[in-house]
Amino acid sequence: MTQHHDTLRAVTWQDNKLQLIDQRKLPHHHEILSLETAQATAQAIHDMVVRGAPAIGITAAYGVVLAAREAYRQSPTDWMALIGKDIEALANSRPTAVNLFWALRQMQALFPQINGDPEPVLLAAAQQIQQADIAANYFMGELGASYLPQGKSVLTHCNTGSLATGGYGTALGVIRNGYATGKIKHVYADETRPWLQGARLTAWELVQDQIPVTLLVEGAAAALMRQGQVAWVIVGADRITANGDVANKIGTYSLAVLARYHGIKFMVVAPSSTVDMQLATGQQIVIEERLKEEVLRLNGQTIAATGALAWNPVFDVTPAELIDVIITEKGAIENPTTEKMQAVFNASL
Amino acid sequence: MTQHHDTLRAVTWQDNKLQLIDQRKLPHHHEILSLETAQATAQAIHDMVVRGAPAIGITAAYGVVLAAREAYRQSPTDWMALIGKDIEALANSRPTAVNLFWALRQMQALFPQINGDPEPVLLAAAQQIQQADIAANYFMGELGASYLPQGKSVLTHCNTGSLATGGYGTALGVIRNGYATGKIKHVYADETRPWLQGARLTAWELVQDQIPVTLLVEGAAAALMRQGQVAWVIVGADRITANGDVANKIGTYSLAVLARYHGIKFMVVAPSSTVDMQLATGQQIVIEERLKEEVLRLNGQTIAATGALAWNPVFDVTPAELIDVIITEKGAIENPTTEKMQAVFNASL
Repeated sequence: MTQHHDTLRAVTWQDNKLQLIDQRKLPHHHEILSLETAQATAQAIHDMVVRGAPAIGITAAYGVVLAAREAYRQSPTDWMALIGKDIEALANSRPTAVNLFWALRQMQALFPQINGDPEPVLLAAAQQIQQADIAANYFMGELGASYLPQGKSVLTHCNTGSLATGGYGTALGVIRNGYATGKIKHVYADETRPWLQGARLTAWELVQDQIPVTLLVEGAAAALMRQGQVAWVIVGADRITANGDVANKIGTYSLAVLARYHGIKFMVVAPSSTVDMQLATGQQIVIEERLKEEVLRLNGQTIAATGALAWNPVFDVTPAELIDVIITEKGAIENPTTEKMQAVFNASL
Repeated sequence: MTQHHDTLRAVTWQDNKLQLIDQRKLPHHHEILSLETAQATAQAIHDMVVRGAPAIGITAAYGVVLAAREAYRQSPTDWMALIGKDIEALANSRPTAVNLFWALRQMQALFPQINGDPEPVLLAAAQQIQQADIAANYFMGELGASYLPQGKSVLTHCNTGSLATGGYGTALGVIRNGYATGKIKHVYADETRPWLQGARLTAWELVQDQIPVTLLVEGAAAALMRQGQVAWVIVGADRITANGDVANKIGTYSLAVLARYHGIKFMVVAPSSTVDMQLATGQQIVIEERLKEEVLRLNGQTIAATGALAWNPVFDVTPAELIDVIITEKGAIENPTTEKMQAVFNASL
């Protein structure tokens, strides 16, 4: 495990407050929001101050701490009844982030055991959720990097780093480890239209940690691969189904097809909380489509012709047969199949 | 041949002036620049008021008309000596547009035959160059559309329409014909980062001509193909080598790989002036790289993190084996090879 090139935390607990880097302002402004109520925390998640499934879950856990503090102030004997509304607000802050509901369940499960002030117990639990996520990322970083050859470049998509997780990152954790250990000499990052997570967030993170990063438009990825410099494509996941299909940010599937065509390896890095063994294949995943304005406008400016329609799916599904390895904190699944997935996850989930 | 859905001209000669749609202002403002000198014409080409290789060539031809008018005013007997500086300015206005030099050669070849005022002869020649380009586009539109099935969607990349040509367009000419004849029900257009020709220009053209167009980010093209709605990918070309390799806007090669993977057909539409039989394969094409600011900034706003590098190749090369048909005004070349290309072009070029 290495902590080199690892200085950022999107979510921190400091001075008895929840502090979030406002990711909407990055990379131009590095602003910290201090939150003291669960309602403000729910609003911050809703407004995408914080994003990335693990980071959202951790933020929600700290939100429960703030909710409990408030409820305990109102009624030391009846705080558990008063906290419900705040937890509901946190649960409703984003619709699809599975980690959000998981974190809220983890926190609520502690309530019955608590005597007296709930804040110390819940704070310790939230901090444990964050530390466990970071530890999982360190582990995945090392495991994933063990697949990399020496001194090549890698290509990544969207943001999967410290900003999207408790810290260190999933795919970007592998990249951090690979860079620190000399396996990776250079990182190429898709700009990741339409929200530009690659340009805004991934590049910013890597620049902060002094890892050299070159941005390219999605359309240039195939030409880059053809040059023979990229050894692996390394991405995260929003959901992994029982057969090893992977839903991730739109553009991921394209990279998987292109990687296979060019003989480049394709790695998915995600914690086991991303695995959904209830869905047989990725075909069962409903792909969310967002507002066409995300394609037609940028930074408040209209960039497209008036009258044009737009198709704006948020995710795509990469079939398991295009994936060389899925890295989780429970181990690596090479050339994933339902059987291999079951061997790792059916027992342990 | 159909003239349905064909109302735009980027370049027109009217009231004894050259008139250009200012493509830098599209789609937000539809402004016409009126030019009365060759120097202003050269500046307009340099500044990308007009873009697209055929449109640049036609503009330069009209620029020679303006140059001749000015030179003849100065000296009716010695205009041919005076015109050289203006032609040099036109030739230097853009470095790589082959059609520009071709058009200037066409015009200069007429000089020795001219008696008296050169303007009528040269104007007729420039208009003939534009009309021949439009006629070639109509022909290619019909020939290309003959390959399309009934009632499907197509995907295109960059801008290849009226704005990029004398009128009607190359790939977009095929799409115009296909839509007018009911073969195409819907057009999908890549936004075409970083310059957004798809979002800015192609969508605007199609909206003007009431052809339904849906924009998508490049990263979504693979997911769109997987849905099975796209029958053909139809693109233009900046250069075609003797073996049928095609250089075109960055992102084209990606679409060709993705199309092959999904069993979708891939068509290239370009006039024979785009064919370069002097180059054996696309590997010999030097790919121009533009400033990284085109990726890092948009509309004057910085969109990426400070300190990030960027790779900004303008073109990529699609190998002939990924191309199902090349459409030119001299005929169609299916599954192009050097032998098939020689059969069409070695005799006629």
